[in-house]
Amino acid sequence: MARIIKKSSRKKGLPPGALVHIGDKKTEKVRISIIDYNEESFQEKEAESVEECFPFKEKPTVTWLNIDGLHEIDVIDKLGKHFDVHPLVLEDILNTDQRPKIEDFDSYIFFILKMIYYDEKKEEVHTEQFSLILGHNFVLSFQESIGDVFDALRDRLRNGKGKIRRMGADYLAYSLIDAIVDNYFVIIEKIGERIEGIEEELIDNPTSSTVKMIHDLKREMIYLRKSVWPLREVINGLQRGESDIIQKDTYIYLRDLYDHTIQVIDTVETFRDMISGMLDIYMSSVSNKMNEVMKVLTIFAAIFIPLTFLAGIYGMNFNPEASPFNMPELNWFFGYPMVLILMLGVVIIMLIYFKRKKWL
Amino acid sequence: MARIIKKSSRKKGLPPGALVHIGDKKTEKVRISIIDYNEESFQEKEAESVEECFPFKEKPTVTWLNIDGLHEIDVIDKLGKHFDVHPLVLEDILNTDQRPKIEDFDSYIFFILKMIYYDEKKEEVHTEQFSLILGHNFVLSFQESIGDVFDALRDRLRNGKGKIRRMGADYLAYSLIDAIVDNYFVIIEKIGERIEGIEEELIDNPTSSTVKMIHDLKREMIYLRKSVWPLREVINGLQRGESDIIQKDTYIYLRDLYDHTIQVIDTVETFRDMISGMLDIYMSSVSNKMNEVMKVLTIFAAIFIPLTFLAGIYGMNFNPEASPFNMPELNWFFGYPMVLILMLGVVIIMLIYFKRKKWL
Amino acid sequence: MARIIKKSSRKKGLPPGALVHIGDKKTEKVRISIIDYNEESFQEKEAESVEECFPFKEKPTVTWLNIDGLHEIDVIDKLGKHFDVHPLVLEDILNTDQRPKIEDFDSYIFFILKMIYYDEKKEEVHTEQFSLILGHNFVLSFQESIGDVFDALRDRLRNGKGKIRRMGADYLAYSLIDAIVDNYFVIIEKIGERIEGIEEELIDNPTSSTVKMIHDLKREMIYLRKSVWPLREVINGLQRGESDIIQKDTYIYLRDLYDHTIQVIDTVETFRDMISGMLDIYMSSVSNKMNEVMKVLTIFAAIFIPLTFLAGIYGMNFNPEASPFNMPELNWFFGYPMVLILMLGVVIIMLIYFKRKKWL
Amino acid sequence: MARIIKKSSRKKGLPPGALVHIGDKKTEKVRISIIDYNEESFQEKEAESVEECFPFKEKPTVTWLNIDGLHEIDVIDKLGKHFDVHPLVLEDILNTDQRPKIEDFDSYIFFILKMIYYDEKKEEVHTEQFSLILGHNFVLSFQESIGDVFDALRDRLRNGKGKIRRMGADYLAYSLIDAIVDNYFVIIEKIGERIEGIEEELIDNPTSSTVKMIHDLKREMIYLRKSVWPLREVINGLQRGESDIIQKDTYIYLRDLYDHTIQVIDTVETFRDMISGMLDIYMSSVSNKMNEVMKVLTIFAAIFIPLTFLAGIYGMNFNPEASPFNMPELNWFFGYPMVLILMLGVVIIMLIYFKRKKWL
Amino acid sequence: MARIIKKSSRKKGLPPGALVHIGDKKTEKVRISIIDYNEESFQEKEAESVEECFPFKEKPTVTWLNIDGLHEIDVIDKLGKHFDVHPLVLEDILNTDQRPKIEDFDSYIFFILKMIYYDEKKEEVHTEQFSLILGHNFVLSFQESIGDVFDALRDRLRNGKGKIRRMGADYLAYSLIDAIVDNYFVIIEKIGERIEGIEEELIDNPTSSTVKMIHDLKREMIYLRKSVWPLREVINGLQRGESDIIQKDTYIYLRDLYDHTIQVIDTVETFRDMISGMLDIYMSSVSNKMNEVMKVLTIFAAIFIPLTFLAGIYGMNFNPEASPFNMPELNWFFGYPMVLILMLGVVIIMLIYFKRKKWL
Repeated sequence: MARIIKKSSRKKGLPPGALVHIGDKKTEKVRISIIDYNEESFQEKEAESVEECFPFKEKPTVTWLNIDGLHEIDVIDKLGKHFDVHPLVLEDILNTDQRPKIEDFDSYIFFILKMIYYDEKKEEVHTEQFSLILGHNFVLSFQESIGDVFDALRDRLRNGKGKIRRMGADYLAYSLIDAIVDNYFVIIEKIGERIEGIEEELIDNPTSSTVKMIHDLKREMIYLRKSVWPLREVINGLQRGESDIIQKDTYIYLRDLYDHTIQVIDTVETFRDMISGMLDIYMSSVSNKMNEVMKVLTIFAAIFIPLTFLAGIYGMNFNPEASPFNMPELNWFFGYPMVLILMLGVVIIMLIYFKRKKWL
Repeated sequence: MARIIKKSSRKKGLPPGALVHIGDKKTEKVRISIIDYNEESFQEKEAESVEECFPFKEKPTVTWLNIDGLHEIDVIDKLGKHFDVHPLVLEDILNTDQRPKIEDFDSYIFFILKMIYYDEKKEEVHTEQFSLILGHNFVLSFQESIGDVFDALRDRLRNGKGKIRRMGADYLAYSLIDAIVDNYFVIIEKIGERIEGIEEELIDNPTSSTVKMIHDLKREMIYLRKSVWPLREVINGLQRGESDIIQKDTYIYLRDLYDHTIQVIDTVETFRDMISGMLDIYMSSVSNKMNEVMKVLTIFAAIFIPLTFLAGIYGMNFNPEASPFNMPELNWFFGYPMVLILMLGVVIIMLIYFKRKKWL
Repeated sequence: MARIIKKSSRKKGLPPGALVHIGDKKTEKVRISIIDYNEESFQEKEAESVEECFPFKEKPTVTWLNIDGLHEIDVIDKLGKHFDVHPLVLEDILNTDQRPKIEDFDSYIFFILKMIYYDEKKEEVHTEQFSLILGHNFVLSFQESIGDVFDALRDRLRNGKGKIRRMGADYLAYSLIDAIVDNYFVIIEKIGERIEGIEEELIDNPTSSTVKMIHDLKREMIYLRKSVWPLREVINGLQRGESDIIQKDTYIYLRDLYDHTIQVIDTVETFRDMISGMLDIYMSSVSNKMNEVMKVLTIFAAIFIPLTFLAGIYGMNFNPEASPFNMPELNWFFGYPMVLILMLGVVIIMLIYFKRKKWL
Repeated sequence: MARIIKKSSRKKGLPPGALVHIGDKKTEKVRISIIDYNEESFQEKEAESVEECFPFKEKPTVTWLNIDGLHEIDVIDKLGKHFDVHPLVLEDILNTDQRPKIEDFDSYIFFILKMIYYDEKKEEVHTEQFSLILGHNFVLSFQESIGDVFDALRDRLRNGKGKIRRMGADYLAYSLIDAIVDNYFVIIEKIGERIEGIEEELIDNPTSSTVKMIHDLKREMIYLRKSVWPLREVINGLQRGESDIIQKDTYIYLRDLYDHTIQVIDTVETFRDMISGMLDIYMSSVSNKMNEVMKVLTIFAAIFIPLTFLAGIYGMNFNPEASPFNMPELNWFFGYPMVLILMLGVVIIMLIYFKRKKWL
Repeated sequence: MARIIKKSSRKKGLPPGALVHIGDKKTEKVRISIIDYNEESFQEKEAESVEECFPFKEKPTVTWLNIDGLHEIDVIDKLGKHFDVHPLVLEDILNTDQRPKIEDFDSYIFFILKMIYYDEKKEEVHTEQFSLILGHNFVLSFQESIGDVFDALRDRLRNGKGKIRRMGADYLAYSLIDAIVDNYFVIIEKIGERIEGIEEELIDNPTSSTVKMIHDLKREMIYLRKSVWPLREVINGLQRGESDIIQKDTYIYLRDLYDHTIQVIDTVETFRDMISGMLDIYMSSVSNKMNEVMKVLTIFAAIFIPLTFLAGIYGMNFNPEASPFNMPELNWFFGYPMVLILMLGVVIIMLIYFKRKKWL
């Protein structure tokens, strides 16, 4: 399970704007990949050094610089300075414990989002911070590690299919965010399947491991919710924003993106409702079971304890010779059969009693 | 029970506006039915091909094209192109996992709603997505399967009774939505009956199947709520909307529709309140029962265990010949009756004790 | 107990504005009573036919037409047509499952409220829909059955005391609503008394019937709340409304009415808080009792089971003649007394143990 | 404990503005005290009759008329008429079940507040309604009984210290409200102490009386909250109000007062959070205890029941002479010691078993 | 654990603006330290008397006066008077039970914040009130005791590194608040670690001390929340504020600070969610354990009680000589072995029964 909180205390005492990488080093080397295109041309390469990216700032074509790995502060710093990015923005990119947000600067818009992966093996959800800087003709994106949800998007860029090559950097940024939000649906599906699995188990045979599973699910929903809720504001802010970086044609796509976000939030809330009901069901099922256990105990005790007492009576050693009152039953002709019949009678009465109480 | 979440992951990686049908294929063939009318004329037919619908776009009469079945993407695509519908709208129509919403385009208004059916046999609620495009003189409606709640409305159109034939396409759209909302009351009535049934069971004889029923009901309410809540915004949006597609006369009907929606939401919330209280009642009733079981056990144990002990005492084999201290009682003249009286005394004391504690 | 939901499904499939009475037929015959007055004159009569009411529309005096019973749709229809009331309003009057609301038409204001009665015998709360149409010089009021909370108001009108005869129709409408809201305090007092009764029972001797009472109370609060909450909006709407039907002098009374409504809502919420706490108290008290039962059982078991075992030991039939190791105690001089003392020792040790654990 | 709801039903059927005292008669005679001052002069006396107060209305000095006791309606009525107070305001003053509120009339501002006392002996919170009418040069205050929180304020007025003698009637009204809010902190301190007491008890030795205490505290918090929450609106309304009765210099004091109110509300909410957690702790502690009781029972039963069974075996009377298979052990040389060792073995195995389960 | 509420009742009855120190005396002597700087110069010293600070008010350089210790009211009073601080502000500084807030006066802005320390030894959170007055060229800060979170900031000032020496007093105030907020992350990390610890314990081996820890944590979260939530408004107020004391360049830093605050609040809320789930898990785990205990008891009882009864039967002393019906089994050749086999049969049947019930 992911740590609850990252070591952001590392930053304590430093001045604002100081660049410190907060988070785990998830990749060996920082990788910078460049995609540059317009409707006619397309160029894709991996940069050897950060300086290789600098000329793209001035080119009229749309440039997408993607940085995988945040631990080489120097790279981020140089890139930030060349593209005139505010130090506080760079600080936020490096601190991977940020909340999703949008900030509108004059010459660029800055986004922080969370990419969510589902680790099939561990049945766990992992999050990774995705930062995006959208300028007039460029998009800078920062990821914690190699591997993302944009492969299909890259293919579309390469093939030149769809409208993406005809549109500007704003549409590219939209497409990136859309790919991230679309991926949330995959996560939600997985979680939905787990919820259904637990629900079945809950009804068929709840064990204490079911509680553990509910607890884990609840915790994951808390994280998911933390990543997803602020997204609403982010996309709303974008949609409402008067920034001239976003072209008019793109707004209809943002509305669609907003709808998707609401749908994700809605489903997360529905899941929360479901999960919170599960523990109640579990508790009532445990109570039921204990009731059943108690009934079995009580039935056994209530039937056999009186019988044992009866047997005990006639196991007493009073001397029949000392007095005619001393256990004359022992010498009766039908003494033993009568006691057995008496015992049978007690059993029958108890069974009728418990039948009436609907315990049997 | 309906799946929690539909396979919307199928769409992952596709560009926005790509048409993919998300949902179950609920009908064999896509059926297109055309109703075209004005105050004087009325025409109703089933279209063989999608092209048959095209001429109705230009006719001044009100045209209602109803499409049952969404799995033939080609049909939706052609229709969408002819009626100038934005690809994102078509995408939303095909994705049956949408949230109810309203979107105001310049030349048409787009709605997504949920039709809710009650499956009497399985005692379950089923939902179906209903999409509606309202243009100046046409209404396009899309359903997942054949069979809907509009039969009475069609009769009214055929008979030419009421004001529906005198009014425009906006009133037709209102009438469709009104029919859907009216049908919610039917569902609510069914659920209300089930709640009353469970409440009776809860007080008379709660079993673990009652918990299962409460749980199912709770889950259905979560779904119902998800379908109904956004409706408020939808109809509010319509009522407030400055679109010139809606005529002034229709607004008073929208206010009425809004009231109905609020009433549905209100009842759903009332039901939620009631259901959430039910589990508490169940738990307290189970606790009560366990208390009763425990009391029975304790009374039996507390009465018979001391008696058995007493009987055990006089079952001991101390040799009375070895010493006058060794169980002289066994040779007393009234030994046995005295022990029986002693036992009776213990029983009476215990009964008084439990009576005082109000356990009997 | 009142049905949760009325048969509003009866209306399914009908066009908007169709007049259908939804609710129980609570009175035999529809009764129309007319009160017409100004500062000087006062006239009161019961109308034989609905047409008798028509001339009062044009009279400059204030006219109050009160209709008891809604099942004769024809009467409502005729009255509605003569007083130019919109068909949707008439539909709402007949559907007694409406939510309290206010609707401002140009020439009249339409209110729906709930009158609440307390049935002393059944200890239940009953609600009745009260609709009111306020025109410039008339008030139409519609009730489900004969019998209301306006007798004191009628007396004031007859006696000509107070300012009511000097003021217009708007003040009459205010007075009617004020009488309904004042009656809520009576209901609240009754419920307050029941809450106090249950609280006492809860502390003295909670039984499973207490849970039933809490549950009933909770359910009644849900209904009461449903009737009372929307009132806030209604009266607020009235207070804020720019309608020229309401005269300036009346506004100060509306503010007072609004305060009363808030006070009712406040008390309802306070009651809800109290009731929701009651079940917790009940549960903790049941748990406590079970604890006590368990302690009694455990003390009895822990004392007598070892004793019985000891007695059992010396009840064994090992042959002392076969070996000197076989139960020589049986032949000891102080064998029996020593066993008795041993048993006493066990009892004392157990008592000390339970005393230390504070179970005794 | 205070009654939940006062007999406001007494007012049912009366016209609005009718003067009825709702509340308990808390004082014998109505007492009217007059304080009249400006920077130079100071006069204090007790009025014999209400008419004695009338001349002060016209004097330019600041006059504070304080009325203790509300049951003499005639006094209130005369005073109200002379000072041009609206009948609805007088009605509110007499109905001591009002919610705190502010109402801005043209020539005066009307407040309702709640004074809260802590009855040390009964450990209960009592509330009393305090109404205040602030005119340009006078303050009328109405209390239910003699005895209030203004003694320090009166001393400051008499001594002429502080700015109170230099400021106008608005500052006097502020000072009165400030004294009431300051007194809330005293109540809150007392309740805080009780919470700490209960928390300690909860951890050391929770009993069923702890539940009762938590319940009482919860109920008191409900009342306190009801008195305190509306205060926020009241003081906010005052602060925002454009009334020319409040002088500009006073606003900064109102902001301070508002802060104090927020602080009170904040603490009340914190207390509610704490109290609501207490019952959970109690329940989990009761569950824990029951678990412990059950363990003791189970350990005793599981150890001694098998032993008793073993003893029972060798207490059987099978005739060894009838067959060599009939209990030959009874005649073995080491029969008895072997059984004792067997029993010891059972005890040791059970102890190890329970040790492993961590029940010991 | 910190007291719930401080003795603010000490202030009861005093006029507004009266200076009373509410809080604990945490330091021996009041210490006043002066830091005065601009881009070129830097001066740092400790003031012997409060008068030493006065000349700095007029100097154009930025002056930071930090006062540690609030119990010498005279010092605060003189300082306040010289810097034209309103008496109500001084009152708030001295009352250390204030809520975080911002107040904008014309010539200065007044802040109250809470500094939070984590006492490693006691595993407790401690709060201290930090008040700040920001003027055009000075910052006055008031702390309850010596020792704060500003050491790194002081070093930056001394070294002249970073932009802090180039910026004005507003940036200094921002830096102070930023240091406080940054320190919150340290606290949050500690609490996060404790939550993880408890979660592990909860799953491995929950004891009643776990409940105590959850309870303590819950209580600390209540305090933390109380300190942190109002901060949002404070920084928002600052960000929105039109005060000319804040320079335009500083606003971007305030936005960053606001983000940090939101992040802190977010994490606090996430923690609350987690903690509230923990008690549920604990309860279900206790229930589970009790179930297990009950099962062990029931299995033992249900197996051995019937066996003991059987042994009891053949321990009865019916006289076989008195009748052939009296326990002929005792004389059977295989009597004893048959009984043993019967007993074994009972054990096997019971084991199969419990196996079927999945209790074994």
